Amino acid sequence: MNEKSMTLAELARLVDGIVAGDPDLAVCGFAPLESAGKGELSFLVKAAKVELLRESQASAFLVPLNLEEIPGIPVIRVKDPNLAGAIIHNAFLAAPFVATGVHERAFVGDDCRLDAEISIGPLAVVGDRVRIGGRVRIESGAVIGDDVEIGEETVIKANAVISSGSRLGSRVIIHPGAVIGSDGYGYATDAGGNHIKRPQVGIVRIDDDVEIGANSCVDRAAYGVTWIKSGAKIDNLVQIGHNVVVGENSLLVAQVGIAGSTTLGRNVVMGGQAAATGHIHIDDRVMVAARGGVHDNQPKGAMVGGAPAIPIRTWTRAVSIFAKLPEIYSEFKRMKKNVADLQAKGEEKEGARRDA
Amino acid sequence: MNEKSMTLAELARLVDGIVAGDPDLAVCGFAPLESAGKGELSFLVKAAKVELLRESQASAFLVPLNLEEIPGIPVIRVKDPNLAGAIIHNAFLAAPFVATGVHERAFVGDDCRLDAEISIGPLAVVGDRVRIGGRVRIESGAVIGDDVEIGEETVIKANAVISSGSRLGSRVIIHPGAVIGSDGYGYATDAGGNHIKRPQVGIVRIDDDVEIGANSCVDRAAYGVTWIKSGAKIDNLVQIGHNVVVGENSLLVAQVGIAGSTTLGRNVVMGGQAAATGHIHIDDRVMVAARGGVHDNQPKGAMVGGAPAIPIRTWTRAVSIFAKLPEIYSEFKRMKKNVADLQAKGEEKEGARRDA
Amino acid sequence: MNEKSMTLAELARLVDGIVAGDPDLAVCGFAPLESAGKGELSFLVKAAKVELLRESQASAFLVPLNLEEIPGIPVIRVKDPNLAGAIIHNAFLAAPFVATGVHERAFVGDDCRLDAEISIGPLAVVGDRVRIGGRVRIESGAVIGDDVEIGEETVIKANAVISSGSRLGSRVIIHPGAVIGSDGYGYATDAGGNHIKRPQVGIVRIDDDVEIGANSCVDRAAYGVTWIKSGAKIDNLVQIGHNVVVGENSLLVAQVGIAGSTTLGRNVVMGGQAAATGHIHIDDRVMVAARGGVHDNQPKGAMVGGAPAIPIRTWTRAVSIFAKLPEIYSEFKRMKKNVADLQAKGEEKEGARRDA
Repeated sequence: MNEKSMTLAELARLVDGIVAGDPDLAVCGFAPLESAGKGELSFLVKAAKVELLRESQASAFLVPLNLEEIPGIPVIRVKDPNLAGAIIHNAFLAAPFVATGVHERAFVGDDCRLDAEISIGPLAVVGDRVRIGGRVRIESGAVIGDDVEIGEETVIKANAVISSGSRLGSRVIIHPGAVIGSDGYGYATDAGGNHIKRPQVGIVRIDDDVEIGANSCVDRAAYGVTWIKSGAKIDNLVQIGHNVVVGENSLLVAQVGIAGSTTLGRNVVMGGQAAATGHIHIDDRVMVAARGGVHDNQPKGAMVGGAPAIPIRTWTRAVSIFAKLPEIYSEFKRMKKNVADLQAKGEEKEGARRDA
Repeated sequence: MNEKSMTLAELARLVDGIVAGDPDLAVCGFAPLESAGKGELSFLVKAAKVELLRESQASAFLVPLNLEEIPGIPVIRVKDPNLAGAIIHNAFLAAPFVATGVHERAFVGDDCRLDAEISIGPLAVVGDRVRIGGRVRIESGAVIGDDVEIGEETVIKANAVISSGSRLGSRVIIHPGAVIGSDGYGYATDAGGNHIKRPQVGIVRIDDDVEIGANSCVDRAAYGVTWIKSGAKIDNLVQIGHNVVVGENSLLVAQVGIAGSTTLGRNVVMGGQAAATGHIHIDDRVMVAARGGVHDNQPKGAMVGGAPAIPIRTWTRAVSIFAKLPEIYSEFKRMKKNVADLQAKGEEKEGARRDA
Repeated sequence: MNEKSMTLAELARLVDGIVAGDPDLAVCGFAPLESAGKGELSFLVKAAKVELLRESQASAFLVPLNLEEIPGIPVIRVKDPNLAGAIIHNAFLAAPFVATGVHERAFVGDDCRLDAEISIGPLAVVGDRVRIGGRVRIESGAVIGDDVEIGEETVIKANAVISSGSRLGSRVIIHPGAVIGSDGYGYATDAGGNHIKRPQVGIVRIDDDVEIGANSCVDRAAYGVTWIKSGAKIDNLVQIGHNVVVGENSLLVAQVGIAGSTTLGRNVVMGGQAAATGHIHIDDRVMVAARGGVHDNQPKGAMVGGAPAIPIRTWTRAVSIFAKLPEIYSEFKRMKKNVADLQAKGEEKEGARRDA
């Protein structure tokens, strides 16, 4: 790994933290409590679990602001040890970009404008009229179509496909096997039941700092753009239909599916295998539980679950009742009998009175 | 795009339409109402939304037969503007096949029979004894196994895999990353719980005009064939198990899964993330709602939803009641108490009478 | 196929079977009852279906131990004809490994240790410092990252990706398009809602005899290992999150998703599209029905269905009641009315008595 060495004072500056202990103590890596070794920094998320610090081999720790001083244990107090840990870990791993150029076994088409400082691996393919910014890495087997634009410091991993006309921003990561810009699913059906393909002539636009997981698919627009906005993070095996918009910083967990023309606001979160039907709007900060199926527009901040998705609290209660349906139904049938008995008795008495 | 120019009279002939306005007016492209520019043709699906014609920049429109005449707006009246639009858009985009031959950086095995008029891109791989018809395009990174047959005008997109022995018809489109002919999932388990692989020695057959979406998988048969019949359109990330038959013109939306040996009739529609268990038959024109899970044979034209799938009307009502289960259950408990009270009173009186 | 010829006596020895008929009868292939031809062996799973033997063209049959003798039909009696069939079919198809070496159109990096007896196809890529054991086959378009280790007789199929640092055992099969070792999905979110990537510095370890389906994804660990243990069989389009452990001989059917840090014991079975949330343990021999969503730890041998998953019997009854909810709810409303009537009458009488 040959990670660099940094002092607690240097690290504290990166994460707006306060050192308690020797600020000149140097650490040379970052790892979680159970796997950190001597000389490394680790992190504690909850002050209540302070005893874990003593069991860890790490030499120093990121801790919450409210943790009391522990003699002999050097710490950096921060607001969010979790976040500070991610920032520091990235700092340890940061390395200057090594530009290996276009590998002699890669293929690049005509009229491309490639920055001098790039790395294109063996057996990668770049089409015609492609523009690629600085410090971009394209791994082996990746296929970049014609007229694609790629910003700076973007990584296209092995065997990913970026179809013609796609526009990718900077610091984007496209994981192995992902397909960007395949045709949307659109047909018109004739009287004989045959499906005539509607041409899919739009593109995909992916903004800065987006990550698209392995074997995920983002379809090109029928017309116009399918748009993944900055900071959105999409997990593996996710399907994004044509003309979908995924808002800034939204999170789509593995195997999610978004049907055509649906738009998501900022910081939407959809759990694993969740889905949204087409032509709806899911507004900012909506959270959809894993496997939720959203059929209607959702207002800002809504939390939903189930399919069709309903408010999460209702869903949670409904599924717990669902699990009890067998016994509730038995009770229901007993009660039905009781009510029938009561009615029968009432009628009997009624009859007796009339007879009297 | 350099789309060609066609007159309204020429276009009307393509779609069995009637021109109202100047039949010699030439248009040079097709786009939806909101994005069409001057000189382009657009389309209106519903006569009631006629005011949209005035807001559009398009020079002429496909309109429904029942739309009244609008002075100064040239139209082509057709039975189905949606369908006519798809046909005309395809006509505008149609271009003669450009055969670039086998790229010097592609690899082709031994004893192949390739039509002279084909395009095989850089870093594509074609195995041994492969037969490829005229006007076929195989894109970069695609891998075609041994003994594969491909009809005419078929397109195999970037990084798709067509495993050995597969037989593809004409005008088939295999999207990027799709895998045709991987092994089916079949094992026999010994007394120790170890799974012995059953050889998967069948093939995949894909008929004319089929489309298979990005990163979808169609498994080869254990014996015999897995068969996707003509005109079926399969979206992205769909799983088709071994020995499945998908009938003519069936539509499988993204992330659908069909387990082994299940057969689908013609024009079956399965919504996104729907699934079918193995060894069942889903007959012609069955519609399965998104996320439906079909466990049993379905008769012609059945419409089902839910998992296990039930008739769609029952499912729709059942899920709306499901959402109300928390309040219904509260009512139920109140009612239980009321019934108990009534019983108690009844017994009290009964007792009083007996005592009297 | 040029399958070899074997006598019933030889075959019986392979599967611990007893020949009834001529032990020197030679057969030259294996197929199911309906497709077996003359000269081939077939198999009958259920003694009750004995009439199928007469309709089959096969020359001999694997049959259950309890099947009575049938004059003129040579059979091998075995405990499990299903399992014996798989073993014998594999024996017929077994062929010596043909080492074609590294294809001149493949690319291999520096400092690799490749066994002499391997086959690396055209346009496959192998990184630096990779170690590959004997009789390994790497197909066209596959990309093997740096520092990967691969045991003996493993097959990496077309366009699969094995990312850097992955360790694969022997007799592993990675199907086309599968991605092993992509980054896990892990972020820390800052106060502005931006997601900071947590470095994913662990690896994937895949033990002997594992099979990973087409376009499936196994994420590398955040730290440490994501571990697929020996004999596990994973179908197509399955998602395995970071730090997951899949126990020995577990079966994950197509489109299953396992979230991060969840661990599965031995011989767990998860049906198609089933899922497990993160950080739980699913113990040995648990069975999850297709589409089941497991939210909690599951004890050894539990059988569950639904989402959130509940015991399978409860789930089966609950879904059958769910389908009847519309009629049950109507009855419920009628009953509510009846109870209200009874109460009203009771109060009326009560009132009458008080008045009297």
